[in-house]
Amino acid sequence: MINRRNLIGAGALGVAGAAATFSTPQAGAVLATPAISRNRRRFNMVTTWPKGLPGLGTAAERVAQRISDMTDGLIEVKVFAAGELVPPFESFDAVANGSADMYHGAEYYWTAKSTGFPFFTAVPFGMTAQEIMGWIDFGGGQELWDELSGQFGIKCIQGANTGHQMGGWFRKEILSLQDMAGLRMRIPGQGGEVLRALGGASIALAGGEIYQALQTGAIDAAEWVGPWNDYSLGFHREAPFYYGPGFHEPGASLAVGINRGVWDSLTVSEQAIFKASCEAVNHETLGEFTYQNSVHLDLLVNEHNVQMRSFPEDVVKRMSEAAYDVRAAAGSSGIEKRIYESFEKSLKLMRGWAGVSDGVYYTARALGK
Amino acid sequence: MINRRNLIGAGALGVAGAAATFSTPQAGAVLATPAISRNRRRFNMVTTWPKGLPGLGTAAERVAQRISDMTDGLIEVKVFAAGELVPPFESFDAVANGSADMYHGAEYYWTAKSTGFPFFTAVPFGMTAQEIMGWIDFGGGQELWDELSGQFGIKCIQGANTGHQMGGWFRKEILSLQDMAGLRMRIPGQGGEVLRALGGASIALAGGEIYQALQTGAIDAAEWVGPWNDYSLGFHREAPFYYGPGFHEPGASLAVGINRGVWDSLTVSEQAIFKASCEAVNHETLGEFTYQNSVHLDLLVNEHNVQMRSFPEDVVKRMSEAAYDVRAAAGSSGIEKRIYESFEKSLKLMRGWAGVSDGVYYTARALGK
Repeated sequence: MINRRNLIGAGALGVAGAAATFSTPQAGAVLATPAISRNRRRFNMVTTWPKGLPGLGTAAERVAQRISDMTDGLIEVKVFAAGELVPPFESFDAVANGSADMYHGAEYYWTAKSTGFPFFTAVPFGMTAQEIMGWIDFGGGQELWDELSGQFGIKCIQGANTGHQMGGWFRKEILSLQDMAGLRMRIPGQGGEVLRALGGASIALAGGEIYQALQTGAIDAAEWVGPWNDYSLGFHREAPFYYGPGFHEPGASLAVGINRGVWDSLTVSEQAIFKASCEAVNHETLGEFTYQNSVHLDLLVNEHNVQMRSFPEDVVKRMSEAAYDVRAAAGSSGIEKRIYESFEKSLKLMRGWAGVSDGVYYTARALGK
Repeated sequence: MINRRNLIGAGALGVAGAAATFSTPQAGAVLATPAISRNRRRFNMVTTWPKGLPGLGTAAERVAQRISDMTDGLIEVKVFAAGELVPPFESFDAVANGSADMYHGAEYYWTAKSTGFPFFTAVPFGMTAQEIMGWIDFGGGQELWDELSGQFGIKCIQGANTGHQMGGWFRKEILSLQDMAGLRMRIPGQGGEVLRALGGASIALAGGEIYQALQTGAIDAAEWVGPWNDYSLGFHREAPFYYGPGFHEPGASLAVGINRGVWDSLTVSEQAIFKASCEAVNHETLGEFTYQNSVHLDLLVNEHNVQMRSFPEDVVKRMSEAAYDVRAAAGSSGIEKRIYESFEKSLKLMRGWAGVSDGVYYTARALGK
């Protein structure tokens, strides 16, 4: 494991593993602290999120706060926004090589490392939030994730879930499949591949670049997250048609990745604390996105006159077909094939269950007064 | 606070609050344990679940295990199945009066104490799992819950969620509203009130009594939980028609209730551990029910020839109308009115969001191949 912390500077506070500790007794500890020194450690968490990004940046902060609270301050996790310590998409390498201790981010950002990673975040026409939670914890997902991430010296845990992500903001209405041809849209990952299969162009833009690109007409459409995150960026002022449901990220699971040496240096008790911190925050963010998206959708529709639209049936069908092809291509061989097959097996079972439960409950509830 | 532990016998291991401790140094502690004694405590958790009930009995065990793991064994939580220490429906009183330290159960079991409690579990045509998580944590639910439970000296935290519960097993098909008249069905709580509004009879039976009642024809129908829990009880052998979606419990949230004196005796760090244990298990069970219900529905349909049915539209509409009346009646005055109004306000917003996200995504996904 190469430690290049000193090359990075701001990371010098971080301690990979238990290689160094300092022994100031914690001030204000509530437990009866023995009159001997207790080891304190500090870990650096890099993230792929802009500073303070609602829901995701705050999720990383909450994981850190819970770890500190539960260890009675013996472990401090310092959170760095995207670019503060390393550029966002270098978070994975930084943790793999030990120049950072942990990351909070989206696994599909590491698709260039392995096309298996997107299955642990979200894939088009794939699992909703509670479905991916079920696959990872009980359908064999975690074991495959451990194997894949383990190849890079990283241990991963679910650490936030956005719930459903919207289909995006469009400057002009999509009335049929023909309108997708030539469409220039900000949509990354497998969702972008689906768009390309329909004749559109997937444009790569960071969150902060989207508004201007819509304003100047450099792009025709853009997806970001959902009403809560989208609201503050003001996309509705430039692209009045808001499409839902979306299909590219039906329940995006975010991850905490921990350097394997750091993870192995933790006691059994500390590992349990790290795991529960991440999972409790996963619980917390899913509820938060559900609530805040509800509040902000209402604001967008009733105070900003946003026009809600749904994709025409021919577009949905073609996107669905393309999604199957894109997923299959991502899982064509090796461990990626085993991840893909495990995911599809669970997805098939879950589609059956959704068809007599949530998938039809919402529709029936909407019929009521 | 009345301590009637000695009246109960088996509870003698329990320690309410930090009133007593014992000081055996923990065997096998991984942290460097100082050579002085460390305080260890043991708390009793009573539950409303039969021993080992999948998903719910195991959720209580997992909360206990996580607390033990995260405190490095300094706090042990001993879990008692329904009836082992107190009868299941006396769990609330036992924790309120300090004869037990904690409970794991469903808040709607305490409806006789306050008609506000069911809103924290599930109400007919109410919130799904992720929606109730959002209301409790971000929509003002927890504050109202703290106020209500606080009147009884109890602090509550979300501690499991079953996800969607099915509409139940029926010996004969329901073809119209007329078939609901005179129907004798095992369905408790507000769901039972809705049935009564449609002319049926709500029969109170414990889980272990349902099978025989279906077999002898004492009841015409019964709901329990969903495919996973229902499968092992064999209802499909006596009542071949399985109705979904259900409407009475669209995402039942279970609770950990903690004696207020016990809660206040915990350090800030220990409180954070208790909270994260419960929330991580809430995360875990929602995924587990989603996965296991998917697996067991497939078994029921494809290996046991269960006939899936959905309620006719006139039944759904009448149930929906009755549900609104039942909810309103439960929140007619006092704190119950404030709980009801907060719940309904969030539910209305969430219905809007579901209508462009999950609520329509599942349907669109089902159209694909």
